[in-house]
Order: sequence, then structure tokens, then C-alpha cells
Amino acid sequence: MTYCLGLLMEAGLVLAADSRTNAGVDYVSSYRKVFDFSMPGERVVFILTSGNLSITQSVINLLRQDLHKEGESLHTMPTMFSVCRYIGHKVRQVEQQDRPVLEKDRIDFHVSLIVAGQIKGEEPALYLVYTQGNFIQATEETPFVQIGETKYGKPILDRAFNYRSSLKIAALCSLLSMDSTMISNLSVGSPVDLLVYERDTFRIAQSCRLQENDPFWVEMRRAWQQSLQNAFHNLPDIPFAFTPDPSRL
Amino acid sequence: MTYCLGLLMEAGLVLAADSRTNAGVDYVSSYRKVFDFSMPGERVVFILTSGNLSITQSVINLLRQDLHKEGESLHTMPTMFSVCRYIGHKVRQVEQQDRPVLEKDRIDFHVSLIVAGQIKGEEPALYLVYTQGNFIQATEETPFVQIGETKYGKPILDRAFNYRSSLKIAALCSLLSMDSTMISNLSVGSPVDLLVYERDTFRIAQSCRLQENDPFWVEMRRAWQQSLQNAFHNLPDIPFAFTPDPSRL
Repeated sequence: MTYCLGLLMEAGLVLAADSRTNAGVDYVSSYRKVFDFSMPGERVVFILTSGNLSITQSVINLLRQDLHKEGESLHTMPTMFSVCRYIGHKVRQVEQQDRPVLEKDRIDFHVSLIVAGQIKGEEPALYLVYTQGNFIQATEETPFVQIGETKYGKPILDRAFNYRSSLKIAALCSLLSMDSTMISNLSVGSPVDLLVYERDTFRIAQSCRLQENDPFWVEMRRAWQQSLQNAFHNLPDIPFAFTPDPSRL
Repeated sequence: MTYCLGLLMEAGLVLAADSRTNAGVDYVSSYRKVFDFSMPGERVVFILTSGNLSITQSVINLLRQDLHKEGESLHTMPTMFSVCRYIGHKVRQVEQQDRPVLEKDRIDFHVSLIVAGQIKGEEPALYLVYTQGNFIQATEETPFVQIGETKYGKPILDRAFNYRSSLKIAALCSLLSMDSTMISNLSVGSPVDLLVYERDTFRIAQSCRLQENDPFWVEMRRAWQQSLQNAFHNLPDIPFAFTPDPSRL
């Protein structure tokens, strides 16, 4: 499994990805799932990957090959929309080559990608590209996208993140979302890659690679848990309809 | 879909269930999913249901019929273990009758049940009964069980609940778990039934039925969101490896 997420804000973009890959529980390994296609100063383009590793590696390699050729590439596409359309074409190209053979062994053809960045002249943009090569764009109302194991990490985003959040809050929020997912799904695991992009800078502002046993991570988990436990004191009393002897509670 | 959960503590039991049932998005209705088979003063037995409504109703009706007959019933079983074994038999009886016909129309035979209670002479106990009629018991290490849409509501339980929690904290925790689930899955919906059982009392201590637009629920959601947003101030700074100009963040 995988968990990657992208957060879009007025202030910029935050991206996070785990790095665990597994083929069954008895073959677990670590692969980076964040790929940088930026041209610092002119455009920032990041791709985060989920799905069958052979498929995502094929797509990334096709995209890289084009950088060294004449013609269309992630460095020449004029808009983030055209970047996604072009990436979608590469997904479909791999699909045509590999799906028939994979399906003979009942292996699903599955890949999903987060594409995030900003090209000079445009606003920062965040997209989710599906297995079929089509895609959707994050908006002010729904300012995040997730791929892989998406459910455990969604409530914290729903409650604590929105389009007006600061980059700092969004970065912490994405790490807590990742932590919630890693606690429940062992096929999502550290190291976690975190990237922070500030709008109109056209280069990554901050990045890091964090291990679950890193002192920061341990302290983040402890402090958050403590805060949640304290937060119960701020909640209203439950209006029980039937309370034989409230003093016993 | 459905979301039901049961929490086991030293202090007793907390149970919560939504009440939405749907057959597609264009046929949504409300059914109670909590069933009381207690004999106040002697035993408390509750069943929470998830799965195909016709199957869960069949199981509950078979269990009710036996209460009015001579012989085995939920009022005569000597232990919570035998209660679950007996409920499992009823699930298998419905399975034999209905599965072949359901499968002709490609409808899965699926049911899962939470069984919770205490019989005099025993400790409080909490079980999860599967479609196949087999079951597992909650323990001090893993003191909660969930059925239906389980993922969105799990992180809050992982972080804020344990076997030593008070009944009050556990009740609030289960409502927040339900709230996280209702925000993300429209097929889980209010009213929410909440039950609190204090150990060795052999009667339900407190219960209520809450609507999502109830002033309590609205205030709980607002206060919790506010507390989470404040909690970010207690988190450590992220140890970014690459920080070109931290003053700009």
C-alpha cells in the first residue's frame, strides 16, 4: 500500500509521501514515491505515485526520457493542465503495453498520481491523475487530494486544514495524517518525504525525510495525543435522556 | 453502509451506532441498529448490526422468537461466550436459507454484529461476530471493535481511548469517532444511539439518541475542531533538512 497527500493553499503547496512498498506481507521494501521535475526559477512540478511499482516506475521513466529529447516534455508544457494531460497519455501508453499481460495473472492494472506545482504565469495547482489517465483538480472548497490508503488520514484534514491554513500548519497536519495512517496500516511506513512550496517562488522552500523513530516524530505523536486527551475537557456534556444515577459515572 | 462501535473498559462498556440504511444513493432510510436482550438485574446483552438489512432483521427475529419458547435463548445462555456461539448459529441458519438465492442476483451474503454485555458471575465482555458465525473478543490490549465503515473513526480511538479510560471519555470518544465517519461517508448518518454500561450494575446507566443538528452535536464538533487547531501550538518544529529562507514561512 501507499499513502500520499497533497494540500493546496493560498500560501502554496504541501506534499507528503510514505515510502513503503510491499508484495505481500513477506516482501516489504522501501522506495521513494516523490519525483521532482522542476526547473527552479521557472516551474515547480512534483509527482507522487501509488499503485503497482512496475507501472509507476515505467511512467516516471517515460517522463524522464522525454526531458532529454526534442519536443514535448514536463519542461515544455505551458500549463499545469497540459502537464496532467501529458502525464495521463503516458499512463495510457503503459496501460496499453502492460494491462493485457498483467490481467493474464489476475493482477490489476492500477496506478494513481498526485501532480502538484506552479508554472510561471499560473496559480499553484494540485491534481489527482487516475489509472485511466483522466484527472481532477483540487479547489478552494476541496483543497487536498489523497492516493493509496486514504481513509485513516482524512479526519484530521477535514477538521484542521483549509485553503487559508499556513504552510506550517499544513505541513504538521499532513504529518499527523500520515501518522494516523501508519498506526493502522502496516503497509504504509516511514521514511516520510515532506515538501513545502511557497507560492510564486518557483523553488521548494523546505523539505525533509523523516523516520518514525526520529525524536521529532516521537515527540509530535506524544504531544498530539496529550493535546487530544486534554481537549475532552472542552467538550459539552452529553445530553443523556436516561440517567438513573449520574453521580456514579 | 453502517458504523457501529463497542468500547470495553475496566469501568464498563460504551456502545454507539448510526441508523442510516441505504440501497443505492437514491433509497436512504433510517433503521435502529441497536437491539436490547437484557434481563435487568441479571444480565445485559446488546447486539449492534451491520450488513444486508434483510439478513440482520432475520437474525434478530430468530433470537427474539427463542425468548418466548422453552429451551435455549439469550436469556438462558450461561456465559457471553455461549451467547456469541448461539448468535453465530443463528447467522449460519439464515446463511443456509438465503445465500443461494441472494447469490443468484450477485448480492453478497454479508452481516457483522457487535455483541456486548455482562452476565452475573462474569466480567463485562465485547465480541465481534462475523458473516461466517465465528467471532473474536476484545481484550485489554485491543479494547474496541468496529463494524461497517471502520477506518475514518479509528484514529481518534487509537490516540484517545484505552482500557483505563473513564466511561465519560469513552462516550465522547465514540461520538467523535462517529462524527469523523459521518463527515466523510454520507451512507453513515444520524440519529446516533449511544449506550453507557457501568460494570456490575446489570442495567444500562445512560443512553441517548442524538441528531447531527442537535445543539450538543454542533457544539461538540465546533469545540473539538477549535481544540485541534489550538493543539498545533504544542507540536515541535519540523526538522527541515533544507531551508533556504525560514523567515519567509
